[in-house]
Amino acid sequence: MNRPTVRHARDGFRWDGVDLLRYKDEGAAPFRDVTRQVLFDEVPAGTQWRYFEVAPGGHSTLERHQHTHAVLVLRGRGRVLVGNRVHAIAAHDLVEIEPLAWHQFRADTDEALGFLCLVAADRDRPQLPDDAQFAALRADPVVAAFLQPENP
Amino acid sequence: MNRPTVRHARDGFRWDGVDLLRYKDEGAAPFRDVTRQVLFDEVPAGTQWRYFEVAPGGHSTLERHQHTHAVLVLRGRGRVLVGNRVHAIAAHDLVEIEPLAWHQFRADTDEALGFLCLVAADRDRPQLPDDAQFAALRADPVVAAFLQPENP
Repeated sequence: MNRPTVRHARDGFRWDGVDLLRYKDEGAAPFRDVTRQVLFDEVPAGTQWRYFEVAPGGHSTLERHQHTHAVLVLRGRGRVLVGNRVHAIAAHDLVEIEPLAWHQFRADTDEALGFLCLVAADRDRPQLPDDAQFAALRADPVVAAFLQPENP
Repeated sequence: MNRPTVRHARDGFRWDGVDLLRYKDEGAAPFRDVTRQVLFDEVPAGTQWRYFEVAPGGHSTLERHQHTHAVLVLRGRGRVLVGNRVHAIAAHDLVEIEPLAWHQFRADTDEALGFLCLVAADRDRPQLPDDAQFAALRADPVVAAFLQPENP
């Protein structure tokens, strides 16, 4: 390993020696205003520990996959859809995303939402909802209102 | 899984549905004023994600093991010994502890030190230093000063 033992936090939820990455390639999937930083990769072996930040009004991709997410909110405030339920979340809240649960994170319009997300290093690719799956999600009015702004 | 999808943070770095545990059994190893909370267990499979809090003036056990630690400081301020180096740490700093590196966390005397620590669920037991190993660590005056208050 060439990483230093300690990598200090900088202002603005950045870290020494940690690159600010795109969340995904543009056009790969719908999302808005999300960045990604990999804090630990293969420490412990088989894991990747990331920090995502969703700018005010932004959102992650609506997706699902077999692999699980363990999430701890580090800053800000927003909402997360998991399965067919919408939850308000704020700093230090824990979110567990089970296999094949549809999920999406949305920052509040006036505040960024930053969260730690732990995954297995070896994991399956996300699935996007097809039209029928999207319609099924939108059948719930609360979910529809959550998805509405960006997924009319 | 019976855990709820979202477990909200409470004041004082506690969480809904997360027990406040002893760091270790009293007398099992030297330590002072440390608590442990398991935030995620086997999410993802094979991992355990914990939150430790060291009260002002307290410290974790001086130990080493084959398994690695990925650490993110969540609150406060303190110092960590890793190998033969002492590092000042504060909120959101990252610490990586490699296999068999001696390590100990100490909170500052006027502030608690709380940190997230990710480990493999299946891991080896910590080793404590024998007299010769402890003397070797103390040969460095900076390390000796770090260890001094509780390990004369």
